[in-house]
Amino acid sequence: MFTIPLGNLPLIKKGDNLGKIISTALKSKQIYLTSGDIVVVTEKIVSKAEGRVINLKTILPTNMAYELSGITGKDPRLVELILRESQEILRAGNNFIISLTNQGLICANAGIDQSNVKPHHAKLLPINSDKSALNIKCILEKKFRVDLGVIIIDSVGRPFRHGSVGLALGCSGITPLLDLRGEKDIYRNELLVTQVAIADCLASTANIIMGEAAEKIPVVIIRGLNYKGEGQASDLLRSKTEDLFR
Amino acid sequence: MFTIPLGNLPLIKKGDNLGKIISTALKSKQIYLTSGDIVVVTEKIVSKAEGRVINLKTILPTNMAYELSGITGKDPRLVELILRESQEILRAGNNFIISLTNQGLICANAGIDQSNVKPHHAKLLPINSDKSALNIKCILEKKFRVDLGVIIIDSVGRPFRHGSVGLALGCSGITPLLDLRGEKDIYRNELLVTQVAIADCLASTANIIMGEAAEKIPVVIIRGLNYKGEGQASDLLRSKTEDLFR
Repeated sequence: MFTIPLGNLPLIKKGDNLGKIISTALKSKQIYLTSGDIVVVTEKIVSKAEGRVINLKTILPTNMAYELSGITGKDPRLVELILRESQEILRAGNNFIISLTNQGLICANAGIDQSNVKPHHAKLLPINSDKSALNIKCILEKKFRVDLGVIIIDSVGRPFRHGSVGLALGCSGITPLLDLRGEKDIYRNELLVTQVAIADCLASTANIIMGEAAEKIPVVIIRGLNYKGEGQASDLLRSKTEDLFR
Repeated sequence: MFTIPLGNLPLIKKGDNLGKIISTALKSKQIYLTSGDIVVVTEKIVSKAEGRVINLKTILPTNMAYELSGITGKDPRLVELILRESQEILRAGNNFIISLTNQGLICANAGIDQSNVKPHHAKLLPINSDKSALNIKCILEKKFRVDLGVIIIDSVGRPFRHGSVGLALGCSGITPLLDLRGEKDIYRNELLVTQVAIADCLASTANIIMGEAAEKIPVVIIRGLNYKGEGQASDLLRSKTEDLFR
């Protein structure tokens, strides 16, 4: 496996066709995609292209947002956005809100980001990252006449351990969860731990290359693996009843 | 960045010198380590070399182990080992025990594994994976006359999401947590999410190559990054008071 970073994209703005922009950038660097390549894209540019950057001055907080703002010390307009983007608030305290987003991700601030946006603006996560991945995949496959996988990722904190890792918010053309049930170990016993979160591991691989300032290298090509398949990023989500730590 | 898998090692047994075995295997394949390479090793072979495979017939369960065996349906001798390897049991139920291990990892069964060991045996995690990483590093650095990073990893489940990802149990010669405080975004604002769990992201990268049957490819070389530094895997552990999900 090896990775090809793609940096120096133009600043992405609402309405941009990301597939086309990535294709142009690749060709300008004489990088040609081949079948089996996995194109990993940070959600940061997907959100921008999809117009998910909000001017906080347009947001009128509800009473609930003011209340949660009082608990957390966060801007009530930001809290209002977090509430709109969440199904459920799981934890809140001094300067933090952990929630279950409308898309099923558990993270801080509903994934809303104020880095790399203009002052008084906030960037929401893409509405449907699987669909965003499919859109990019279709365009790149047509431009390069190949079969690809595409993953939309974010860098996310987690319980128990410091530091963020990459998580797959959306994917297309790959199997997010590799099922090893039925495989045998070296003593021919069936393996018990049977699922590897391939899409999240690939997201963490790209996360190393992107770093936290993912707008500088917003796209990483991962080449030399064979994880073509079907599935969506929500295959990775545990339901509440399956989860011991909610 | 690219990865070089190293498979077909001899079966590892107690007392084996892993650094020497890895070095011999690399040289026999004409793979020469270069400075900056990160050598990722599955804990499965580290534990075996360190004699951490236990014959369950030698284990006498305590009353507490019998009690927890009643709750979980697990073999009381295995439960006894889990208790010995744990500081604290966090969750237990039908066929599962989640604990905080003596080393500070939160995972199922205290990381005790019955795959790839003889019947009626169980394999514990290494006692001190940072030290194991340092030992392997010293031997490989001397053999190849280079500066290396070494990470000992396991494939571990997690809250909220299905599938296992790679986690760093021990490391030497690399910075496990990349601190970006003070770095600026493209609008020159300081970044807020400031730490990337590089060692865990590298562990997940190797996890893709190793798969769950990590004894077939127990070592992966990651080349082309620059994460030389100091630190230990425990830098990645949140203390209980810093953790919202315990």
